[in-house]
Amino acid sequence: MESGRRHGALERSTIAALGDLWLRDVRIAGSPAPTDIVIERGRIASVGPPPAEWRAEAIDCHAHLALPGLVDGHAHLDKTLWGQPWRPHSAGAGLPALIENEREARVELAPVVERAAALLEAYVANGTTLLRTHVDVDPENGLRAVEGVLEVAARFADRIEVEVVAFPQSGILAAPGTERLLDAALRAGASLVGGLDPAGVDGDAAAHLAIVFGLAERHGCGIDIHLHDRGPLGRGQVGLVIERTRALGLAGRVTMSHAFCLCDGEPEVEPLLEELAEQRIGLATVAPAHTSPPPLERLFELGVPVCLGQDGVRDLWSPWGDADMLSRAGQLAWRAGYRRDADIERCVEIATTQGALALGVDDLRLSPGGRGDVALVPASCRAEAAVAHPPRALVVKNGVPVAGSLRSSATRCDTRDPTSA
Amino acid sequence: MESGRRHGALERSTIAALGDLWLRDVRIAGSPAPTDIVIERGRIASVGPPPAEWRAEAIDCHAHLALPGLVDGHAHLDKTLWGQPWRPHSAGAGLPALIENEREARVELAPVVERAAALLEAYVANGTTLLRTHVDVDPENGLRAVEGVLEVAARFADRIEVEVVAFPQSGILAAPGTERLLDAALRAGASLVGGLDPAGVDGDAAAHLAIVFGLAERHGCGIDIHLHDRGPLGRGQVGLVIERTRALGLAGRVTMSHAFCLCDGEPEVEPLLEELAEQRIGLATVAPAHTSPPPLERLFELGVPVCLGQDGVRDLWSPWGDADMLSRAGQLAWRAGYRRDADIERCVEIATTQGALALGVDDLRLSPGGRGDVALVPASCRAEAAVAHPPRALVVKNGVPVAGSLRSSATRCDTRDPTSA
Repeated sequence: MESGRRHGALERSTIAALGDLWLRDVRIAGSPAPTDIVIERGRIASVGPPPAEWRAEAIDCHAHLALPGLVDGHAHLDKTLWGQPWRPHSAGAGLPALIENEREARVELAPVVERAAALLEAYVANGTTLLRTHVDVDPENGLRAVEGVLEVAARFADRIEVEVVAFPQSGILAAPGTERLLDAALRAGASLVGGLDPAGVDGDAAAHLAIVFGLAERHGCGIDIHLHDRGPLGRGQVGLVIERTRALGLAGRVTMSHAFCLCDGEPEVEPLLEELAEQRIGLATVAPAHTSPPPLERLFELGVPVCLGQDGVRDLWSPWGDADMLSRAGQLAWRAGYRRDADIERCVEIATTQGALALGVDDLRLSPGGRGDVALVPASCRAEAAVAHPPRALVVKNGVPVAGSLRSSATRCDTRDPTSA
Repeated sequence: MESGRRHGALERSTIAALGDLWLRDVRIAGSPAPTDIVIERGRIASVGPPPAEWRAEAIDCHAHLALPGLVDGHAHLDKTLWGQPWRPHSAGAGLPALIENEREARVELAPVVERAAALLEAYVANGTTLLRTHVDVDPENGLRAVEGVLEVAARFADRIEVEVVAFPQSGILAAPGTERLLDAALRAGASLVGGLDPAGVDGDAAAHLAIVFGLAERHGCGIDIHLHDRGPLGRGQVGLVIERTRALGLAGRVTMSHAFCLCDGEPEVEPLLEELAEQRIGLATVAPAHTSPPPLERLFELGVPVCLGQDGVRDLWSPWGDADMLSRAGQLAWRAGYRRDADIERCVEIATTQGALALGVDDLRLSPGGRGDVALVPASCRAEAAVAHPPRALVVKNGVPVAGSLRSSATRCDTRDPTSA
């Protein structure tokens, strides 16, 4: 699935700092006793103590639980009001009213770089090391938001990997000029092309998808499509996306965001799920209040990669969200009615390793060869971590400590063992 | 509504410490500029500066938002595992399996005083100043849990007012001997008599309610009935409770907890809501994941008092809950689909002033004569407070600071104004 990622992991790892780090005394899921994690040149070298000649940084982790870096698979960094004064919600009800309200009100907002940077600071503090953000592209906004988010993403590259979806929030056919702008956004550095309710918002599913898949083919990039439409209308579009993914050989490069039509428990959904698995099409959920979560057990069984997102965080669409993916994993588990550890832990996987898979990243895991991305929390197990979502004690990106109070306890080891010096 | 409270407010206020306190520079909902709150002998004396001769404690509140003390209207202190090592959920699905699992597993738990005290510490730190807890009474448990919780409640009386419902978790008819134990629990100090699905669990709604209302009449105490039964079965029992409340003149003394049958949007509910309002029967919701919230707008219109609770916090029933009623107010608002400030603020009222009303307490408000119970948070308005639910900067009970970092900044004022000394 990782093959063909134009931007993101591979490209960024060449610009991000790669650290050597020895995390002493951590808990790891599946390990009966606390152990160590050793990171060399940004990658996990071993789970267990380092070689005797270890001479780099070490942090005593006091048996905190180590999680892989947290993943937000569906964010909207350009929309956030995080760090701004509280702004009462002003939109009417329904999708068109929300889109219209935003178009009118966004001109008053602080620059996107200021708002996106404030939110990324919170994401980093909360242990997020990989994030996919949709960024508005439309004739009024032009490339302003994409350029702003790309600028902030570059500034944060040592702390969090950000991939940008060029997102037609106002539609493509409904907002003439958007196709050309999406093309320009992809040339400017966006990693994926987005879509929005090809039928429900844009009124012509076939034409909308022809443009989206055409751009993906032309740019060799992935696709991530917002789909709110429900019932047969929604399911029909999922079918069209599957068909085009298969026809263009884009297996493993396509994500469907929200896809509420797959969450309503209708029996017609099952064959679609099987085809999603076959085409390795990922599903992004935001654990919403108003819709059932996706059928997580079945998706896991089938191997459909699922990621979790905050969606907007405190923006013109909604005041909710907090940039904490561990809290959001708990929200997903709670909404799914989970009480057992194994079920809750599935949601933590969706917010870490599984979520990364849904974004085409297959090396976010706490085992040798995995990315040196780690979030430490004071918890005995992953279920407790999701339920309590305590502050992150340490956040490590590519082997470099980037946040958390334990960071200040880092010591330089001249040797692993003084007697062998 | 407050008349006839056998225990709680009146009785406890005679044992709780009553403080004099000047909270300088606080925000209050509805007040355009920051102001002051002055508490004398445990009650709010004024909103605005104190008299010139003020000579008691003062705290500079740096324009934090002042909320009335938070209220948990539906807790289960005796069941909690708070402060204990993480315990994976072990029960099967469904109400009978949950009850049975608890009966088997509770014998292994740490003493109720230890667990309940740990949870009350968290409630106090989170600004809760009034809490109603159901406490299990059954032939195996006897009065052990009630006595334990009453002991802890007495120990915490200066920090939080706790009222105890003698709760037949295993049924009354289904667990012979429970009626006598409920009677004994009320004599031992429980403030209210509880009930549990008179039809669904106990199999005979009329007989169950005859016992519950009989005990209430004999002890002159209030009633709080758990009702999970849905549809016509649930609605029928709501009707029976209304009928008995009216017949015994218990208006304002009865609460229905959960009452999911009123939350499912069925048209038959409306006449019941009107009768609940007429009999001032309160409704306790816990903002669950699996059921829609009660019809809050309609309940407000009708004047049905609504309170909010955590239900169990990390217990043998569920790992969820966190003893933070501001976070729970946000959860209720989020589950209700609220985005606008006015709607979210309604949920804060349910977790403060309105919630107290549902418990028969009519003096929890930030105005002269109100209880000197205040929770301060760093927020610009109540909607922001519920969405962000930041740590409480200061918690005041009866005019006495009991928690929060601002507590340490309290100064003794020899006079309000040095020049007038």
